[in-house]
Amino acid sequence: MRDETSAGRVTLAQVASQAGVSLSTVSKVLNGRPDVSAPTRVKVEELLDNHGYRRSTPTAPEAPLIEVVFHELDSTWSMALIRGVQNVAKETGVSVVLTETGTRHSPGADWVEGVLRRRPLGVVLVFSTLPDDLKKKLWSRAIPFVIIDPAGDPEPDVPSVGSANWAGGLAATRHLIELGHRRIAVITGPEDMLCSLARLDGFRSAMGMAGLTPDPALTRFGDFHVRSGHAHALDLLGAPAGTRPTAIFAGSDLQALGVLEAARVLGLRIPEDLSVVGYDDIPPAQWSSPALTTVHQPLVEMAEEAARMLLRLRRSDRTDRPGSPPQPSGADQADTRIEFGTRLVVRDSTAPPPGA
Amino acid sequence: MRDETSAGRVTLAQVASQAGVSLSTVSKVLNGRPDVSAPTRVKVEELLDNHGYRRSTPTAPEAPLIEVVFHELDSTWSMALIRGVQNVAKETGVSVVLTETGTRHSPGADWVEGVLRRRPLGVVLVFSTLPDDLKKKLWSRAIPFVIIDPAGDPEPDVPSVGSANWAGGLAATRHLIELGHRRIAVITGPEDMLCSLARLDGFRSAMGMAGLTPDPALTRFGDFHVRSGHAHALDLLGAPAGTRPTAIFAGSDLQALGVLEAARVLGLRIPEDLSVVGYDDIPPAQWSSPALTTVHQPLVEMAEEAARMLLRLRRSDRTDRPGSPPQPSGADQADTRIEFGTRLVVRDSTAPPPGA
Repeated sequence: MRDETSAGRVTLAQVASQAGVSLSTVSKVLNGRPDVSAPTRVKVEELLDNHGYRRSTPTAPEAPLIEVVFHELDSTWSMALIRGVQNVAKETGVSVVLTETGTRHSPGADWVEGVLRRRPLGVVLVFSTLPDDLKKKLWSRAIPFVIIDPAGDPEPDVPSVGSANWAGGLAATRHLIELGHRRIAVITGPEDMLCSLARLDGFRSAMGMAGLTPDPALTRFGDFHVRSGHAHALDLLGAPAGTRPTAIFAGSDLQALGVLEAARVLGLRIPEDLSVVGYDDIPPAQWSSPALTTVHQPLVEMAEEAARMLLRLRRSDRTDRPGSPPQPSGADQADTRIEFGTRLVVRDSTAPPPGA
Repeated sequence: MRDETSAGRVTLAQVASQAGVSLSTVSKVLNGRPDVSAPTRVKVEELLDNHGYRRSTPTAPEAPLIEVVFHELDSTWSMALIRGVQNVAKETGVSVVLTETGTRHSPGADWVEGVLRRRPLGVVLVFSTLPDDLKKKLWSRAIPFVIIDPAGDPEPDVPSVGSANWAGGLAATRHLIELGHRRIAVITGPEDMLCSLARLDGFRSAMGMAGLTPDPALTRFGDFHVRSGHAHALDLLGAPAGTRPTAIFAGSDLQALGVLEAARVLGLRIPEDLSVVGYDDIPPAQWSSPALTTVHQPLVEMAEEAARMLLRLRRSDRTDRPGSPPQPSGADQADTRIEFGTRLVVRDSTAPPPGA
């Protein structure tokens, strides 16, 4: 619908005339003033969007705030990610605003109204998406946003930060193979998440490179929570010694904790009877008994980088085009994807297999 | 320094004259406008404070924000407290701003400038204090604040939310006594924190009521972290069976996790050889192997209540004194202390003592 050829040439008077409102009303919409009716605001916003109109010089001063949007604040990851954004915020004298979208995976229109009112330096989205109309609204106000997406499924037009899931799966599995394990089970995340598949592929590649064929009966899909690790492990370890796995690579530390508890209930010692590798390296991985060997995802650093990307986007926005004409929305935000390396942290839950 | 008798009668013209500035400059300071030099702002603020001047009707509209100030964001409690504030914020369409004070236990002057600029509905302080001058600044702008203080050492002039530490210590110890334990060790928090002492006193009262005399050698002060639980437990459990404790009441879940690891290293089974009770009921308490019996602190509910107290203070401020004259600062915020009950959650880390 966007009229590319008119981008950069539309005047506010034209928008006012097309919307059937006064120039001052268009100006109020542009400045995020509250005294405009909702239908009028929508109509004017649509016209501005269709013309690719970009507010090059926001009239209200921006606030020293970074917005962080979570799908679910309860995740064991949340604290590390908040920590990372907070580190950068503190360095730069900025405060952090939290929003949780809850059951929805994307924030709603009421959220974006709040953001436009607050005029933050930028928005970090954790594991969430933005509907196209909200993206346009942020772009049109030159409010940058970045997605932290450890699941590895970034949207092409949004800068994002992720981590190397395939390499993590490879490293975990190689460690177990080097210890002498051959019957290795894997409990990964949901089948429809790219990070689950990438870790599983890393596992399969490590097995293949060692000349081992993974037993399909020892591959399980879970949901990254304690309970799924526990249930799959009870099932996997119920087999008689000799046929049961001597090691389990879990898709998350929480699943690995569930595996530890299943082993305890079955009277198996970790790591003497069973080796366990987790994934994430959240704090409870260090506190578990025994402490978990796991794949470290640099969540704090990922969030720090996301916050710094915002500040860079903000700056380049300022530097490259001072007083520049309106641009088609989104054109300058594309193509940035940073992927952080993962590394194996060897603690006390892995050892050579029994009888090795 | 405050001239109580003049409170309510000072005029802005008097302040302007005493500060040697124009009335419009005083008005700019009152409205938090940035175009006033720092020395002038300080001088005017001081005069306003000394006169107990209270801005009864803020001119800038308040923003739908609740500020949360942490001393240390890394604490295992932080997530539950953020969660609680967020629950109330979501109900009421409000966003949450996070600040971490880091090494300092109280936020600095730069923080308060940001708060005055943002005009939040109120401030929740977690385990932090406010210097008197910052308290006055918030009072003078009618920005309420509440302290979440599970340590049980509230300041008398600030509304606060805490929990029943003594009763928690009592309940944990009674549970162990009822199971048949007699030689019970206690690892509590730092000796200079009221919550450590209250839990220890609860422990002692339960022992005394059962006709048991606690062995001073089995009472240890730690720092609430995993390592201190681990070190004290290695020492306590190093004694030969018969003289070593059959149960340990730890001052935090983290300390209890350290106790579990010490027991594993020493080859003691939980709960067959040793019973362990934690404190807090943070999520890792459920994920440990075995799952921890612990004293539940309702951290989410405590933070919810703190946020609701803010909104109530805000409302009563509005309702009681519409257009009322300036009040001496702080007079309306005193004396509110809410203490939440704690309860024992029995899981798998406690059982009758060996041979019972």
